[in-house]
Amino acid sequence: MASVSVSLGERSYVIHIGSGLLAQLTALLGPVLTTKIVIISNDTIAPLFIEKVVQALPTFDVTQIIIPDGEVHKTVDQFNAIMTALLTKQVARDTTILALGGGVVGDMAGFVAATYQRGIPFIQVPTTLLAQVDSSVGGKTAVNHPLGKNMIGAFYQPNAVLIDTDTLASLPEKEFSAGMAEVIKYGIIYDLPFFVWLEENKCQIANRDQQALAFVIKRCCEIKAEIVSLDETEKGIRAILNLGHTFGHAIEAEMGFGEWLHGEAVAAGIILACEVAKREFNFSVSECRRIVDLLSYFKLPVAGPGDMVFDDYIKHMQHDKKVANNKIRFVIPTQIGHADITDTVKQSTLEAVLNR
Amino acid sequence: MASVSVSLGERSYVIHIGSGLLAQLTALLGPVLTTKIVIISNDTIAPLFIEKVVQALPTFDVTQIIIPDGEVHKTVDQFNAIMTALLTKQVARDTTILALGGGVVGDMAGFVAATYQRGIPFIQVPTTLLAQVDSSVGGKTAVNHPLGKNMIGAFYQPNAVLIDTDTLASLPEKEFSAGMAEVIKYGIIYDLPFFVWLEENKCQIANRDQQALAFVIKRCCEIKAEIVSLDETEKGIRAILNLGHTFGHAIEAEMGFGEWLHGEAVAAGIILACEVAKREFNFSVSECRRIVDLLSYFKLPVAGPGDMVFDDYIKHMQHDKKVANNKIRFVIPTQIGHADITDTVKQSTLEAVLNR
Repeated sequence: MASVSVSLGERSYVIHIGSGLLAQLTALLGPVLTTKIVIISNDTIAPLFIEKVVQALPTFDVTQIIIPDGEVHKTVDQFNAIMTALLTKQVARDTTILALGGGVVGDMAGFVAATYQRGIPFIQVPTTLLAQVDSSVGGKTAVNHPLGKNMIGAFYQPNAVLIDTDTLASLPEKEFSAGMAEVIKYGIIYDLPFFVWLEENKCQIANRDQQALAFVIKRCCEIKAEIVSLDETEKGIRAILNLGHTFGHAIEAEMGFGEWLHGEAVAAGIILACEVAKREFNFSVSECRRIVDLLSYFKLPVAGPGDMVFDDYIKHMQHDKKVANNKIRFVIPTQIGHADITDTVKQSTLEAVLNR
Repeated sequence: MASVSVSLGERSYVIHIGSGLLAQLTALLGPVLTTKIVIISNDTIAPLFIEKVVQALPTFDVTQIIIPDGEVHKTVDQFNAIMTALLTKQVARDTTILALGGGVVGDMAGFVAATYQRGIPFIQVPTTLLAQVDSSVGGKTAVNHPLGKNMIGAFYQPNAVLIDTDTLASLPEKEFSAGMAEVIKYGIIYDLPFFVWLEENKCQIANRDQQALAFVIKRCCEIKAEIVSLDETEKGIRAILNLGHTFGHAIEAEMGFGEWLHGEAVAAGIILACEVAKREFNFSVSECRRIVDLLSYFKLPVAGPGDMVFDDYIKHMQHDKKVANNKIRFVIPTQIGHADITDTVKQSTLEAVLNR
């Protein structure tokens, strides 16, 4: 078992990573748990894991709220429905929300925890690769608005994250790949040796070798913890974690939330950012090729939807959270292992890249 | 002009209090303002003051969002409507929300600022006595849920509070009185000399003497700042600020939000708490009498609605945010100038007090 610390003063917490951890919930998280726990999960994940979680909490008062699966349900309406359920069950402030599921469950349950009675304790138990390497760590919580992804939310740190790598065994191929887009992202923005390691171990990863996966998850959590500890609320460096996300969110919004998985849209977005980088920041053609190859190995898209053009992207990107001074800011790789944030990308470059 | 500091580390801010301050917005708040400002106000307050505010921000890019007046609109639906307006106007993160109005506008605009794109800067410009002495200070933001008042919200501190005492000149009598319930509350829970001063100067206050009002507002803000600085997220002492609120919220919810003004319900709640205190905590009959007299002087109710009985109160109070370990916690005055928090009130006492 491994553990990674997220250092945020009084909001610090530990990420536990390993095989068979669901069964060890009480042993690992006992000190940070309240007696009363509400598990929020979805109707795909709950049948797989919720009994295991409940059994691992024998001395706790456990309630369940099951929501429908899918990004399309990450809405203010679903958020309000959870609030109604909590109030109907007379859930009080001395209760911990336990998010059991992927990114949608974690983002939504986190926003509920952040705002129910002005904030109650919160635990992340992510069950998808994407949630384990990215969304469960760092305290970003949100729901979508028809006019933009994650537009309503809060920075609200969990009290702990528990990652049981066994949950990945049943993860559908497509969702596993989507998680790999975020994994590869960490190599591109922050860690060349990790990127090289991914290239060299891609086969073991695709075969879901337990040791390889445990290393991947630990390294991603370490990188994210390091960046989040430097910049909790994304005033600066944290924004590099959004490589591929400005384009990716536009794809998700244009295609309708849930049509493209978040990770798939991010993969396409990473390549679009690489194309911009090639044209304006001397990003090397061969490094771009390596990124395309690695994403492709995991069957991820390396271009946006064929029928999406410049105007389709722009109308969504103008709502992006990184817009400042009326300029869209982009995360651009300068070489594998390093990324910069810029608001000087020329419109002609964007047109050339997005209209390809 | 007076100023009061709220000391909360990097979330510290200043409350400016005085006559004619709306016109001095740029001079007083310039350093904490962004170039882009969205004023959120309601359709009662905006016609009175918004032009003055806009004129006081000549070099800023100012947008207005006007919502309907009243507690009944402090809902998730109205919150979502404001979010839609902000996204439609393509408001970016580098924008300050300026709440211009009473408690409803401040609570709602504050929750919008706390959650729009995970949080943007926020200024409070309260225009009612209640908002000036209480709700604009301390970072409590929220909307109501049909199952309970302020059940969805966040602790989110403003970057500054600007209180122009001139705005009270046009405040309807009933709303002025509602604010006085919170003013009197501060004396009861924390400051005997202030309570005595209120008794001695009640006539000047009722006549809205500028000097008396300025002193009242400053003293209330000082007390609130002191308590909030000790306990920002209400883990302990801050709860004493809720004297009368557990009963009061039950009255508001039972009667339908907006039927009883918040301050009116708090006044009745304070007396119900005094009645409990008399029976269980040796609170003196003569001090209770002085509180009844002072609230009555300002034409505030000193009993709950005639047709509300024990069961009506309990069904709402079970949802109260102060519930812990399944027990309702009450704020109880022990003598004028001091209050305690207790969860040991006997049911028979509550029945006797609430069924009177």
